Amino acid sequence: MSKRVGKQTVKLESKPKIIATTSVVGPKEGKGPLKDYFDIILQDDLDGKESFEKAESSMMYKAIEETIKKANLNEQDINYLVAGDLLNQLSASNFAARDIDIPFIGLYGACSTMSESLSISSMIIDGGFADYAIAATSSHFSAAERQFRVPLEMGSQRTPTAQWTVTGSGAMLLAKEGNYPYTTHVTIGKIKDYGKTDTNDMGSAMAPAAVDTIKQHFQDTGRTPKYYDLIATGDLGQLGKKITQELLKEYGYDISNKYIDCGDEIFDKEKQKTNCGGSGCGCSAVVGCGYIYKNMMQGKLKRVLLVSTGALMSPTSSLQGESIPGIAHAVSIEFGGNQNE
Amino acid sequence: MSKRVGKQTVKLESKPKIIATTSVVGPKEGKGPLKDYFDIILQDDLDGKESFEKAESSMMYKAIEETIKKANLNEQDINYLVAGDLLNQLSASNFAARDIDIPFIGLYGACSTMSESLSISSMIIDGGFADYAIAATSSHFSAAERQFRVPLEMGSQRTPTAQWTVTGSGAMLLAKEGNYPYTTHVTIGKIKDYGKTDTNDMGSAMAPAAVDTIKQHFQDTGRTPKYYDLIATGDLGQLGKKITQELLKEYGYDISNKYIDCGDEIFDKEKQKTNCGGSGCGCSAVVGCGYIYKNMMQGKLKRVLLVSTGALMSPTSSLQGESIPGIAHAVSIEFGGNQNE
Repeated sequence: MSKRVGKQTVKLESKPKIIATTSVVGPKEGKGPLKDYFDIILQDDLDGKESFEKAESSMMYKAIEETIKKANLNEQDINYLVAGDLLNQLSASNFAARDIDIPFIGLYGACSTMSESLSISSMIIDGGFADYAIAATSSHFSAAERQFRVPLEMGSQRTPTAQWTVTGSGAMLLAKEGNYPYTTHVTIGKIKDYGKTDTNDMGSAMAPAAVDTIKQHFQDTGRTPKYYDLIATGDLGQLGKKITQELLKEYGYDISNKYIDCGDEIFDKEKQKTNCGGSGCGCSAVVGCGYIYKNMMQGKLKRVLLVSTGALMSPTSSLQGESIPGIAHAVSIEFGGNQNE
Repeated sequence: MSKRVGKQTVKLESKPKIIATTSVVGPKEGKGPLKDYFDIILQDDLDGKESFEKAESSMMYKAIEETIKKANLNEQDINYLVAGDLLNQLSASNFAARDIDIPFIGLYGACSTMSESLSISSMIIDGGFADYAIAATSSHFSAAERQFRVPLEMGSQRTPTAQWTVTGSGAMLLAKEGNYPYTTHVTIGKIKDYGKTDTNDMGSAMAPAAVDTIKQHFQDTGRTPKYYDLIATGDLGQLGKKITQELLKEYGYDISNKYIDCGDEIFDKEKQKTNCGGSGCGCSAVVGCGYIYKNMMQGKLKRVLLVSTGALMSPTSSLQGESIPGIAHAVSIEFGGNQNE
């Protein structure tokens, strides 16, 4: 009864269904190219709260509650909330979950958290441990800047390879039944560290992990890029995307005509001055819950590989001279194609 | 094929086996009352590394590698490493996992992480997603002090309710087969926050979560305290333990004659001057991997409920006036009793 496929992939026999999603974004994201796909756009990034951290937590709370409402369920129906975020000690998730009456599993995978929480939730449903589980994550530009870089008040200049942390939260509700997009395979990644130390160039640091996980997913499943309508990495940005695409080509996988990076898509990089693009847990969360999910529901995308990518350094580890370890997890999501293929 | 029992508990039909464990502790823990149960005792808490954070990461690496070796396996045999720690962005786990060739799932549950990682690993094995999975966690007194409280160099006085973060790491290797202690049920907890704000009294903040999870475990399984030889909470310390015991009595569950708290046991509180006792992810990890596992292997304990407990605040959330949310997850571990009961 092993569900293992190849070295690192598992097949979800029961195809857990993503029966509802919600994306909540900040004002900047709400003016970007994907604005029409988001459910809730905040008017300002404090959203009436006393701090950016509390605003982030409140965004996640909204994303979760709205998702439960969309599915006509109550908190009591949901067996697990599987969530994480970028704030130290998962503040955003913990304080959101405090006000929600659902057993809580906290995760940290930096910006890989959306596909990590979706992977764990999918396994929990497929394993028979839950009827309903919610996967959620969030990030907030202003909270991330002061935690990971410098407070905004300092007005630091951004380097050309810098990315802009997405202010946003996404939640996906998984269930055993329903005519909705479903997860079919999960490939949990290994940590890859090629010695990059520039914390203003996370895309390059995470690219090797994305390449490793995507390559492994193809090898394990016997699939090729042809199988998918869309392959979406999390937040490699313009530069990291380019590296990933080129490295995968060297391994014999040309994904160029169906490859997007959520961070590369969410902002108008020129007009919105986001340099290499968006980043943060919230990035692949809101693009996944918004653009990808809605296009799948409309039949415009049938087979998607979502590969959220995380840079696992901490400000302390960087100060202590460590390089930036990266990780990526891949989840195959399908809807409306040939289910028996 | 639902494995759900009651509201919050799942039954692990296949009884995942804990085939090996390793506990690594610092010198102070190595002089405490449980010293004979630990596998590796460090001579100094830097262990030859340049920083406390790197020493913590190295402890976890040792715990994991030693555990794999004990089971006569290789890294390549292990399907998942499920780990977390107290450091911001899970530095200890991430940098340990960077040097280990195993797909990595990062968790954050503050000091509840040992039973959280054991729960997830058990579900992953029971769900057929893995042949082998490792659950691990760590904490380090000196790293935790400067991250959560004040650097040791400041020589701050400790309050009577303060606890001493355990320097230690524990790893458990789970497998489908083998004549070893096995997990039978998992009860994932909800976040409970009764408004406590004193970060020098985490035991009181976490006690309501421990009470809620233990009570729910009994209600879901129909068990009573009589069922277990030992109920062990994670790191409530002397005061939190007292509160938990008394509150459970009010709910009709008298656990007093079989109840220990790992934090209450690991130090000689008088002689070692640890006030209310030990704390930290590493606390229930090393007591679980050391004292509890070894006593189960020797047949001295047959049925144990391990309930690691976490205080989910961050220094930032405390500065922003938030109270301390608590969480607790319970895992039932058995060996040598009547397996069909």
